[in-house]
Amino acid sequence: MHVDADALTEFRRDLHRHPEPAWCEFYTTARIVEELRARDVDELHVGPDALEDADEPRMSLPDQATRDEWAERAVDAGADADLVDRLDGGNTGAVAVVEQGDGPTVGLRVDIDALPIPESDDDDHTPAAAGFRSENEGYMHACGHDAHATLGLGVIDAVLDSDFSGTLKVFFQPAEERVAGGGPMSRSGHLDDVDSLYAVHIGLDHPTGEIVAGVGGFLAVSGFEATFSGTPAHAGAHPEEGDNAIQAMAEAITSMYAIPRHADGPTRVNAGVVDGGTASNIIAEEARMECEVRGQTTELMEYMWEETGRVVDAAADMHDVDVERTRNSRAPSAESDEELAAVVADVADGVEGVDSVMDHDDLGGSEDATFLMNRVQEQGGNACYVGLGTDHPGGHHTSTFDVDEESLRIGVETLAGAIEALSNEE
Amino acid sequence: MHVDADALTEFRRDLHRHPEPAWCEFYTTARIVEELRARDVDELHVGPDALEDADEPRMSLPDQATRDEWAERAVDAGADADLVDRLDGGNTGAVAVVEQGDGPTVGLRVDIDALPIPESDDDDHTPAAAGFRSENEGYMHACGHDAHATLGLGVIDAVLDSDFSGTLKVFFQPAEERVAGGGPMSRSGHLDDVDSLYAVHIGLDHPTGEIVAGVGGFLAVSGFEATFSGTPAHAGAHPEEGDNAIQAMAEAITSMYAIPRHADGPTRVNAGVVDGGTASNIIAEEARMECEVRGQTTELMEYMWEETGRVVDAAADMHDVDVERTRNSRAPSAESDEELAAVVADVADGVEGVDSVMDHDDLGGSEDATFLMNRVQEQGGNACYVGLGTDHPGGHHTSTFDVDEESLRIGVETLAGAIEALSNEE
Amino acid sequence: MHVDADALTEFRRDLHRHPEPAWCEFYTTARIVEELRARDVDELHVGPDALEDADEPRMSLPDQATRDEWAERAVDAGADADLVDRLDGGNTGAVAVVEQGDGPTVGLRVDIDALPIPESDDDDHTPAAAGFRSENEGYMHACGHDAHATLGLGVIDAVLDSDFSGTLKVFFQPAEERVAGGGPMSRSGHLDDVDSLYAVHIGLDHPTGEIVAGVGGFLAVSGFEATFSGTPAHAGAHPEEGDNAIQAMAEAITSMYAIPRHADGPTRVNAGVVDGGTASNIIAEEARMECEVRGQTTELMEYMWEETGRVVDAAADMHDVDVERTRNSRAPSAESDEELAAVVADVADGVEGVDSVMDHDDLGGSEDATFLMNRVQEQGGNACYVGLGTDHPGGHHTSTFDVDEESLRIGVETLAGAIEALSNEE
Amino acid sequence: MHVDADALTEFRRDLHRHPEPAWCEFYTTARIVEELRARDVDELHVGPDALEDADEPRMSLPDQATRDEWAERAVDAGADADLVDRLDGGNTGAVAVVEQGDGPTVGLRVDIDALPIPESDDDDHTPAAAGFRSENEGYMHACGHDAHATLGLGVIDAVLDSDFSGTLKVFFQPAEERVAGGGPMSRSGHLDDVDSLYAVHIGLDHPTGEIVAGVGGFLAVSGFEATFSGTPAHAGAHPEEGDNAIQAMAEAITSMYAIPRHADGPTRVNAGVVDGGTASNIIAEEARMECEVRGQTTELMEYMWEETGRVVDAAADMHDVDVERTRNSRAPSAESDEELAAVVADVADGVEGVDSVMDHDDLGGSEDATFLMNRVQEQGGNACYVGLGTDHPGGHHTSTFDVDEESLRIGVETLAGAIEALSNEE
Repeated sequence: MHVDADALTEFRRDLHRHPEPAWCEFYTTARIVEELRARDVDELHVGPDALEDADEPRMSLPDQATRDEWAERAVDAGADADLVDRLDGGNTGAVAVVEQGDGPTVGLRVDIDALPIPESDDDDHTPAAAGFRSENEGYMHACGHDAHATLGLGVIDAVLDSDFSGTLKVFFQPAEERVAGGGPMSRSGHLDDVDSLYAVHIGLDHPTGEIVAGVGGFLAVSGFEATFSGTPAHAGAHPEEGDNAIQAMAEAITSMYAIPRHADGPTRVNAGVVDGGTASNIIAEEARMECEVRGQTTELMEYMWEETGRVVDAAADMHDVDVERTRNSRAPSAESDEELAAVVADVADGVEGVDSVMDHDDLGGSEDATFLMNRVQEQGGNACYVGLGTDHPGGHHTSTFDVDEESLRIGVETLAGAIEALSNEE
Repeated sequence: MHVDADALTEFRRDLHRHPEPAWCEFYTTARIVEELRARDVDELHVGPDALEDADEPRMSLPDQATRDEWAERAVDAGADADLVDRLDGGNTGAVAVVEQGDGPTVGLRVDIDALPIPESDDDDHTPAAAGFRSENEGYMHACGHDAHATLGLGVIDAVLDSDFSGTLKVFFQPAEERVAGGGPMSRSGHLDDVDSLYAVHIGLDHPTGEIVAGVGGFLAVSGFEATFSGTPAHAGAHPEEGDNAIQAMAEAITSMYAIPRHADGPTRVNAGVVDGGTASNIIAEEARMECEVRGQTTELMEYMWEETGRVVDAAADMHDVDVERTRNSRAPSAESDEELAAVVADVADGVEGVDSVMDHDDLGGSEDATFLMNRVQEQGGNACYVGLGTDHPGGHHTSTFDVDEESLRIGVETLAGAIEALSNEE
Repeated sequence: MHVDADALTEFRRDLHRHPEPAWCEFYTTARIVEELRARDVDELHVGPDALEDADEPRMSLPDQATRDEWAERAVDAGADADLVDRLDGGNTGAVAVVEQGDGPTVGLRVDIDALPIPESDDDDHTPAAAGFRSENEGYMHACGHDAHATLGLGVIDAVLDSDFSGTLKVFFQPAEERVAGGGPMSRSGHLDDVDSLYAVHIGLDHPTGEIVAGVGGFLAVSGFEATFSGTPAHAGAHPEEGDNAIQAMAEAITSMYAIPRHADGPTRVNAGVVDGGTASNIIAEEARMECEVRGQTTELMEYMWEETGRVVDAAADMHDVDVERTRNSRAPSAESDEELAAVVADVADGVEGVDSVMDHDDLGGSEDATFLMNRVQEQGGNACYVGLGTDHPGGHHTSTFDVDEESLRIGVETLAGAIEALSNEE
Repeated sequence: MHVDADALTEFRRDLHRHPEPAWCEFYTTARIVEELRARDVDELHVGPDALEDADEPRMSLPDQATRDEWAERAVDAGADADLVDRLDGGNTGAVAVVEQGDGPTVGLRVDIDALPIPESDDDDHTPAAAGFRSENEGYMHACGHDAHATLGLGVIDAVLDSDFSGTLKVFFQPAEERVAGGGPMSRSGHLDDVDSLYAVHIGLDHPTGEIVAGVGGFLAVSGFEATFSGTPAHAGAHPEEGDNAIQAMAEAITSMYAIPRHADGPTRVNAGVVDGGTASNIIAEEARMECEVRGQTTELMEYMWEETGRVVDAAADMHDVDVERTRNSRAPSAESDEELAAVVADVADGVEGVDSVMDHDDLGGSEDATFLMNRVQEQGGNACYVGLGTDHPGGHHTSTFDVDEESLRIGVETLAGAIEALSNEE
């Protein structure tokens, strides 16, 4: 199995220069598709064909104007305009299928979107020093999804060059950062014949040379926004005429944190962003908060979703204001199957540059690969989330995040090796 | 007493085209001073000379960059650059003194600043239709202070042309909209020999032709901003590591409204603006609120100031966060003296165009003319706040506010007449 | 007009020895009626005949067992058993009518109930030293209603002995301490032909010899009890199974105090008594609070009543518990008519022992004579609440409260004098 | 090994008839000691000698008058007066030591106190029907500690009659129901040479014939009471003069539940009992709450203890009231050692009447045997908490709780068998 490390680096840097937010990965999708077209890929499902019915509402979908702007920017940066057109409606992402003889259907899920974080221009920051810093000012691949997309391509090349016998499907998933893309892709139908699914994440505070064979402990999560709408009034002249949106929101916040603990396992709640009101002498007409709930299981997360709903409604009633609550992200919990993790651990031991293999580690946070993992597991297959160590100078979601490109080759060899091993197992 | 109505209109429209926010009234002050220099004025105290020690911190003073920008804009619009220089440090405003024989010292206070409100460009809105709409986009004379400044000049002209015997001082006060300019001007020393002080406000829902001889019922007010600073943490992975600034702020808000009512009279409290946090999955490091308290008397307002301080501190302690509270505005309560109001009522009855004279009305809200009124009253003088009716299509502080320019003449004749009458009384 | 001071003292001490709580004034009513029967009274309406339809629910009515106990105690103390029977259902109190020629119908309202306060047995406390301390342990005439009832009888005697021409009605009202008796008596019909109504209160921190001709500033008031009923659960094993009645009540309390101030005048709210729960390790199934709201006007009180209702319901919803709210007292606001007060002031000046007459004073608190005053005023009559000074060693509602019996005579002469004067005015 | 089932039943019924609350187990301790004196026991540590320094304050110790009352009642019921005297200061309980050759020191901990629950007098309730219902009205052995004490005696008899070689120590622990006795007994020194410790609980929803070899999952717990002391004021006349103890307590309650979840494991908090205030029209001077916190580990419980402390203090500060917080119970978490559980499981399989053996079960709740278990484990020994099934008609802590006396014999045979087996293991 030959891996072209230079090609991996080059492609990753191209994507790094063009970071795009959730549902706006026009350049990224187009570049991936162009590369796939240059390969011996049997099926290629692009945009709407890679997601469930495109008429279903997408959570956290930006408005038309924003999407148009990113589409235009993608074309300006060299993306194929026809391809970008096919992604209309924020239907980004792709699924590539390689059929290579009899054997199991194995999936690999990688995500492709970036974050609204300005990238460091410090000389210590390699992308800045080496000339591949973000060209979309204010946005950045600060969580390594540029590397993930590159791993997807690299694994296809490596599998094509291997003794793998079976079908490989690579899922280039959009909108992970908003925990919004996993659901629609999991319901696209492309997962339904997958026997074994790998997902991969780079970094996670593990150094280059370390592999976590099976990551688990994903908390189920839902994000929501609530907007309280009251009646403004002059706070000095007629306080009784106001219906105070800020007071209602404050009540909701203090009470959401006081929802009872649950005996079945950990739960979480947070009101992370608030704004409201226009002037200190006006009783606020509007206030808005961005929140999330989590649970060790999907049931526990839904318990918190229900409870926060009742609290928010009651807080609005208490102050006679209206409230509208919108769920804008959702992901279930999941666990990695030990069988698949064991395959990774075995293969990783033999990969050059790997000096530490952990059987298991907990993520602590959430991510929506769990939708795809659940889909496969519910239909009798196995799923496993692999951690690929990389020396990263800054933390995830910070302006100095970067990856050690050496880990790209390690990742491709480990994942392609595990996929190949699965076909031999049968 | 001759009043040049056209000159009043022209000057008011000039100011209307150049609205400037609190402590940035560079063009406005310069234009007033230029006009005063063209008149037979005995003393002219400009900028720092019109306020208490300029080294005292000014509440709600914008930062240097903002002030510089407005100063430059003023010069670009034709203001005398040397004059603008003299207003450095946000020391705007002026005091004009006319000495015209023996007799009482009579003051007139007018305010001169505008609001951060975009002006309507509708054809129904006279300033837009007649070509004197705001040239400083996003800012607007939406409370008639352009008319107030014009009244100040017009009264000087009328008094110069009258039988008034005594000294007239006109106070062109900055930064009323932030309830910040009255204090420094009241402590400038220029009030200390004033026997009788008038202040004036146009509109207030009274129509053209109506005069309120003595406005009272000013609530004392203090504005403040509080910033809570906690410790961020990942809301899913380590909720216990966060010190939640948003939760602390919400606690403070719900509790501030619950401060006990006071038997001595009405009190008010409002948290009118909030913002905080960065993401729904991060426990918020920072949250900020803009609030105000009021009281029927200055003592009641200070009671609320003390109580809110304790609540804010305790809410911060409860969540182990820091809080910094800054008072950014303050005005005492005041009442109009009946003697001065009676003089206005008498004079107004004889002014052409006046068809309704009210002896008294309550303001309900707050304003910092009360600082100047208190200063005069504390030293044995009298003070009176006069309401000058005008047909105003939109409400105060809305984008369609405008004044009926006919009321400018009525205001000058009424106020100058009252001032003249005071010298005759002796 | 002859006043038998010794008889007044004797009767007052009899009542003082037999204090009875609201709606249980069996002995008190029986003794009053026995005295009235011994006089030349034209009509006597007792118990149910002195109140509106006895089938209407009485606020704060004690349960049957409690009433039976007090009825038995009254008979044991010497009350006429047949009379006590007529007061069945807690229908205590009486209305006496004296017809004495043509002239106005004048009313006098006195209240008759006592308080659940143990009386001092200190030697400094006159009732203890002089042998007329409460014989109903735990209960006490700690607000002077024993004196009020005595004044009612004394005024009848004095008026019978005077030149008064007209009709006198004396209202011996039950259940004032629970702010519950005024409503039913005001709707009995007996007030409907009253032209002028006096009510009287002794003490109020005014010394013997001082008369307040017209007391005003009564805050309207409503008391209520709210009981929250949730679902108990083991706080350690299954916190999520509980619906927490204590948490709901706490939420209601913090939020009730935060109801907006009202521009139309003072409002009040208080949660004065709470209890709930059974053990620290059980999520509370039940919690109960006793509260009150007030307002300068009846409308303002009703605003607070509505707002607290919404807050209480929303707090229950927030924690998924039930709540039942019961209004257990209510009195409107009222003001004394100046004409009637002037008559009192005139007469009082000539009464022996009176050395100070105040035209007006504010009560600050609440009382339900206002129901009767409102009834008369609504039908075109006048009403006036008179303050009768007395040296009282302890404060109202304390265990050492007592009255200076000298003030009984002063009160009778002043009130009877005013009533007589009213007939002369016509 | 012979077990006298009739003697077990007789002794258990004697204790059942004389239930005594925590720190008042005078009759119970005396009866146990009398029985021990009749046996061949090598050491007997009674009352103060069974606990740490008796001068240390005992949590939840009833006042002197209450203790005196129970002591007198014990003597009246036939307890040895001298023995009762030795238990002065609430120093109840005992430790019995049997030395029987070389070998390990094995401990058995049983608790002996009852609950303030009135016992059912229904015919279906065996103690009522069979004549051994509680003679201390209002108190009841509703959690089976009468059976526990009996097991302690029975095991001594059985071990004396066995081949056990080593030292047996039986700990008759007081005040478990208040989670208060375990600490002082664990620090008495008597645990310090124990190699293996068993504790036992009957019932726990397991039927007769079922044994849980190792119970775990004890949550660490602390109970506390907080009393808020403010300033009373008339809620209508002078709301601003009050410092509201009820409002402060409500604030503390709503905020305690909102303490952040902890990533390290489950936590709990509850305010289970509240009371405060005296009248709806008085701003409350005093309010009191009984609360508890728990955690999966002792560290997590202490985290909640610290956090609730800060919240309570801040809530008091917010309303300018004082607060005093007293910890009145405390127990750490603990886990059973598998080695000891395995011994129980082995032995139980051979005991007549045992038809189900569970290796492990979680308690969910808390209990203070954990203090003794921790003490032994910290010094290198093992500890194990054994569940002894019994058919119990009513739930624990209910008025119809009872045990199937057949399980007494099963318990003695299982525990004594396990103890004997431990000596053979060496």
